[in-house]
Amino acid sequence: MKTTANIWISKGVVEQQVVSVPDIPDDGLLIEVTANGICGTDLHLINTTPSSPLVLGHEIVGRIVAFGRTHPRTDAADAPLIEGDGIALFPWLPCLVCWGCRRFGPSATTCSNPFVYGIPPEALGLPPLARPTDPVELTGGFGRHLVVKPGTYVWKVPDDMPHEIAALLDPLAVAVRSVDVMKTAPGTWDEVIRPDSTAVVLGAGAIGLLVAMVLRSVGVTSIIMSGSRPSRLSLARDIAAEHVLDIHETEVDERRRYVLDRTHGRGADLVIDATNQPSALGEALGLVRRLGTVVEVGNIVGTGEKLTIDPAQDICQKNVRLLGVAANPPQSYSEAMALLARHDELPFGRLITGRHSFSELPAALADLAGDSVKVMLLADRK
Amino acid sequence: MKTTANIWISKGVVEQQVVSVPDIPDDGLLIEVTANGICGTDLHLINTTPSSPLVLGHEIVGRIVAFGRTHPRTDAADAPLIEGDGIALFPWLPCLVCWGCRRFGPSATTCSNPFVYGIPPEALGLPPLARPTDPVELTGGFGRHLVVKPGTYVWKVPDDMPHEIAALLDPLAVAVRSVDVMKTAPGTWDEVIRPDSTAVVLGAGAIGLLVAMVLRSVGVTSIIMSGSRPSRLSLARDIAAEHVLDIHETEVDERRRYVLDRTHGRGADLVIDATNQPSALGEALGLVRRLGTVVEVGNIVGTGEKLTIDPAQDICQKNVRLLGVAANPPQSYSEAMALLARHDELPFGRLITGRHSFSELPAALADLAGDSVKVMLLADRK
Amino acid sequence: MKTTANIWISKGVVEQQVVSVPDIPDDGLLIEVTANGICGTDLHLINTTPSSPLVLGHEIVGRIVAFGRTHPRTDAADAPLIEGDGIALFPWLPCLVCWGCRRFGPSATTCSNPFVYGIPPEALGLPPLARPTDPVELTGGFGRHLVVKPGTYVWKVPDDMPHEIAALLDPLAVAVRSVDVMKTAPGTWDEVIRPDSTAVVLGAGAIGLLVAMVLRSVGVTSIIMSGSRPSRLSLARDIAAEHVLDIHETEVDERRRYVLDRTHGRGADLVIDATNQPSALGEALGLVRRLGTVVEVGNIVGTGEKLTIDPAQDICQKNVRLLGVAANPPQSYSEAMALLARHDELPFGRLITGRHSFSELPAALADLAGDSVKVMLLADRK
Amino acid sequence: MKTTANIWISKGVVEQQVVSVPDIPDDGLLIEVTANGICGTDLHLINTTPSSPLVLGHEIVGRIVAFGRTHPRTDAADAPLIEGDGIALFPWLPCLVCWGCRRFGPSATTCSNPFVYGIPPEALGLPPLARPTDPVELTGGFGRHLVVKPGTYVWKVPDDMPHEIAALLDPLAVAVRSVDVMKTAPGTWDEVIRPDSTAVVLGAGAIGLLVAMVLRSVGVTSIIMSGSRPSRLSLARDIAAEHVLDIHETEVDERRRYVLDRTHGRGADLVIDATNQPSALGEALGLVRRLGTVVEVGNIVGTGEKLTIDPAQDICQKNVRLLGVAANPPQSYSEAMALLARHDELPFGRLITGRHSFSELPAALADLAGDSVKVMLLADRK
Repeated sequence: MKTTANIWISKGVVEQQVVSVPDIPDDGLLIEVTANGICGTDLHLINTTPSSPLVLGHEIVGRIVAFGRTHPRTDAADAPLIEGDGIALFPWLPCLVCWGCRRFGPSATTCSNPFVYGIPPEALGLPPLARPTDPVELTGGFGRHLVVKPGTYVWKVPDDMPHEIAALLDPLAVAVRSVDVMKTAPGTWDEVIRPDSTAVVLGAGAIGLLVAMVLRSVGVTSIIMSGSRPSRLSLARDIAAEHVLDIHETEVDERRRYVLDRTHGRGADLVIDATNQPSALGEALGLVRRLGTVVEVGNIVGTGEKLTIDPAQDICQKNVRLLGVAANPPQSYSEAMALLARHDELPFGRLITGRHSFSELPAALADLAGDSVKVMLLADRK
Repeated sequence: MKTTANIWISKGVVEQQVVSVPDIPDDGLLIEVTANGICGTDLHLINTTPSSPLVLGHEIVGRIVAFGRTHPRTDAADAPLIEGDGIALFPWLPCLVCWGCRRFGPSATTCSNPFVYGIPPEALGLPPLARPTDPVELTGGFGRHLVVKPGTYVWKVPDDMPHEIAALLDPLAVAVRSVDVMKTAPGTWDEVIRPDSTAVVLGAGAIGLLVAMVLRSVGVTSIIMSGSRPSRLSLARDIAAEHVLDIHETEVDERRRYVLDRTHGRGADLVIDATNQPSALGEALGLVRRLGTVVEVGNIVGTGEKLTIDPAQDICQKNVRLLGVAANPPQSYSEAMALLARHDELPFGRLITGRHSFSELPAALADLAGDSVKVMLLADRK
Repeated sequence: MKTTANIWISKGVVEQQVVSVPDIPDDGLLIEVTANGICGTDLHLINTTPSSPLVLGHEIVGRIVAFGRTHPRTDAADAPLIEGDGIALFPWLPCLVCWGCRRFGPSATTCSNPFVYGIPPEALGLPPLARPTDPVELTGGFGRHLVVKPGTYVWKVPDDMPHEIAALLDPLAVAVRSVDVMKTAPGTWDEVIRPDSTAVVLGAGAIGLLVAMVLRSVGVTSIIMSGSRPSRLSLARDIAAEHVLDIHETEVDERRRYVLDRTHGRGADLVIDATNQPSALGEALGLVRRLGTVVEVGNIVGTGEKLTIDPAQDICQKNVRLLGVAANPPQSYSEAMALLARHDELPFGRLITGRHSFSELPAALADLAGDSVKVMLLADRK
Repeated sequence: MKTTANIWISKGVVEQQVVSVPDIPDDGLLIEVTANGICGTDLHLINTTPSSPLVLGHEIVGRIVAFGRTHPRTDAADAPLIEGDGIALFPWLPCLVCWGCRRFGPSATTCSNPFVYGIPPEALGLPPLARPTDPVELTGGFGRHLVVKPGTYVWKVPDDMPHEIAALLDPLAVAVRSVDVMKTAPGTWDEVIRPDSTAVVLGAGAIGLLVAMVLRSVGVTSIIMSGSRPSRLSLARDIAAEHVLDIHETEVDERRRYVLDRTHGRGADLVIDATNQPSALGEALGLVRRLGTVVEVGNIVGTGEKLTIDPAQDICQKNVRLLGVAANPPQSYSEAMALLARHDELPFGRLITGRHSFSELPAALADLAGDSVKVMLLADRK
């Protein structure tokens, strides 16, 4: 059996190739990819040089074509699976035996020897793949078919859920985690996930918007967002934020004054940096109130820029809690699936601003570079 | 009745003066100060200009001379108090009505309008005193007598506890808090206060040494400390640390290699910066393992220096938890009193390297500037 | 100035009397009561003998008639207050000096010497009032006027919020607390407040319904409720629960089977007992999954009935977390006010099934005994 | 190769048999058992009827005789392993694919389909073994050799640690877990693991004594213990408890009065029931203060007795946190190994009151029934 895949072969070059579909491992699956979200990281990676050719794409949803001989035919939540069912993937396959796996469980970025679908882990500051993907291995969502390796966490896509919605699972799980890390037992000084809190989300891209939606889903409704692209800001206003600030029309000090004015001069209870701008972390530390929380989730890929801080004023005197978010357990994906199941009520669909067929990858990538939010490769798109 | 007090009157100038003892407020106390620890902050402050003359000294222990008419005659733990009893003070007297007091309770540095014994709050990045101490108000531990204002948290000093040990209460409470903030419910990824953890403490001054002792008291015994003064490092080795690094004899990279070698290449589970060097926070972020915790408690007073970080590499990819510590509730003092009560078993006394009478303040301050740990003013020192 | 109040004078007897309005304390307030919710506890108390005559009613909202001379004229969230503003009250006024106050802050049921508006604390297992309310002291919401004592936490009622909605503050704060106590940091085994959790709420009275609404507000939407009165069950189905079980039409075993069927045979992640039936706690322990959480909030007043459990099977082997809820901090009220502010979106109004004037107390009490949810005394009700 | 094993074949009957040592699985190990602690559960089980013959014994330490072909030759903490090394075992081998394993990780009692060394899981309220041990399978510590199955968590025994000390790993891990479950972030009302807390431990058997030692290791030193056997109480006094109560010489009310007297009338901050008496849980609920914590770890095996409680008085009004402990992650074992490594300083050895050879099992069991603490089978005992 043959299929086609978009293969990243060198800096800036992705080629559509016809390749053979390999045998299905005993406990694995073969799926036809039905939807794959394109991530900012994909765009970033394509403009670097791959250590070896790779099928990118890690926000993967597909339809089960065939089961490996001994596959248990249930998903991560014990739901039964049959051929034709849609599934969404946890794109990390940890080794389960290293110290990281034993200490933190099977999570994203904690294993020292993981397999990752559609992304080289060195891009995230981890050691390069010890089990490198072969050039034609079908393990990225930019291909029409994909082999799901044994042990991969998968979730059944409910029959009434469009696959393009299900393909939001991975970025939504990142947003879920960014909010989950702030949760505390009741009564601690760090408590900020409360209905009477004021939140600031820096960055109105897909992660920023999804973070704002997750904040609303846990009861935080006073949300201020900042960003730069008009359509994203407009969407932010429509679906998640009470107030929106255009960083092209305001200065840092102005935005700080704005937040102080809305918080009795105290600053925001929590600030999430969902930009990929190192300076935004500095802004976040200036916007948060004393004893508040800052989450850094946007600066996952280095830009070369640095940030200058004053440990006394910015960290110690402020008694701030600053949390980096890179690791992510399958649990966040379970939570995200439960949120996506409320797609009738929660406007996830509005985040998808670009839809392309698998043969239109260049157009899709160009789309992402402009004033878009989430751009998808979709199988039913001709 | 007359008494004497060391009064900070201008930059670098402290004068011993004879002053009148004021009337005791109805719910207040008059104490004779028996022991007062001199803090690095005192030394720092004396070399700045006071907004008005002030009796410094906030690590205060004294003997009850007289009760105000309506004083309840019990301490913060319900122990009865009589004249002649020793007491140690919580040096903050919050307003109890501002937002900070209502949100966080009566804690150090959280009130917008506190009274503080022996220290101007603007030194810690808080608004200046709205209720400024009068030049001759006897509210600092550098004076022979002190008026305890109504509502002040006080703890009875057990009869078998030397007052110089009790005068470690305030710095020990800071150390207790620096460890407490890391505590979590079982099972979180952030769990680092565990018997199988490796800790690094940067800075072997009084706070660093006390932090190491508190870590041991909660079961963390694998402790690496770094510092620069020979006698402090020697003390560190004797009472708290498994390994000691002299920063004058090692480079940052060498120390990093040392920590990696002792942690299977992973880095320390937790790092506490107890120095007053902004660059040490950078070192801490380099020493901690992924998903580890860094506590910044030493850089409470700005030095003018800044620190350059890479938000991607140092915070986000590392999934670090960075906690600033400035706020501190009376509970830390209750915990610290319980630890001090174990003074037979825990070598608190070894931290006291200088003992001076109240009339020898200049000598005491000179002592602190050298290779000392904790320097005390003591009433029984002639 | 004269006013009228319903005074509980003996077992089963409440009399409407004309009484003098006392002077306003310097830091206090005089309010005209505009709305007061009648609680099941009120009904219970009236049928016992008061230690001294008392104005019952602790779910109090009123309009400011006059300020004491030195009242700060702000509310607990720093909002300014003027004459004519509506306010809702925290009905507990703790002493602030006992061990409970120092350890837990100014909270409901933690002070050993509290004043309570409209309720004798001995009813909740606390020591009787050390500062008993005088027979004609106007400190209950069953009277037309009320003197707010200095130090009472009050929240401004937003101008667009009906006072009958604001009068849900106290029961909603109990519901908020019942959910808050289950919250944990991410990654603990005890985590049950998650979008993929299944909750069971036993009891469809006001507390049960409000608990279900609070659960939805924090993202738990898979909720099964049980109860006995038709209109309450119908309301439960409309506003909060996915599934509803009538305890008059089902056996305990049938309900257990129902819950197991909806949870892959595991049992519910969390069960909240909001009934006043001791046997319901036994049912809760049978419905919860291993490592799940049970909250006991309904059995706050003893019924005389006991419950038989097997510590091995029900507690130890099940690794259950069982949390009693009686204490409640002002923070729950702040959170509840933030939820009530969303009254356009959240159907709080539907819980109010009975509205009566202050002169119709007997009718109001009779109403509560029937198939009602929340019955209010309202000033604008003629 | 032949070896001998004590095989439980019917109610009350254990026979010593010569059996063949099976082949070593590729990722497994063959060990010679050097030390095995006998647990109260063993004693209990022997007096019931096995579903099939079984080698009991789950507190297992041995010396590596041979590695399976592909064994990684490292332990759970990344320490290298060679032939002749001592290792201690995590006696549970979870399936890793069921819901319990995915939700809670590879822990004791959370898997629906575990293998357990030397103990039938139905004894703990779990489903019976789906993978039953064959009569002659060498998987219990009552045999001279044992096959370690692939995937089993093992910890290297440090060369300076006596194997009888290492054999305390399993009960110590239970004690570690019983204390860990109480840990919280700082500032919650539930915080009880503090140096100023008072603890009560009911039961002075091995678990109770180890719990008291673990409490001390995390800084709780005010510990009251109760028990019935003279030598255990004497040991409790020597190594862990400040106060000791003999339940044969005191009534429940007397003990309650004793605890109240030592806690300013409030009750203990935390109570751990380490007895196997259902009534002890009732006593625990009476001894704990309002807002305190009770841990139920002793009643892991049902006795047939029940307990009667009043949900209002015992749970709700008391705002108690009651935690059942049955589940236990490998992390507790890592923590326990770190504590055992301090055996020079912590008097673990004193708990071992009986030492027998593997051929003296009847004598060892008889020993356990008397006034003993921990009884061991030891290979070097002739």
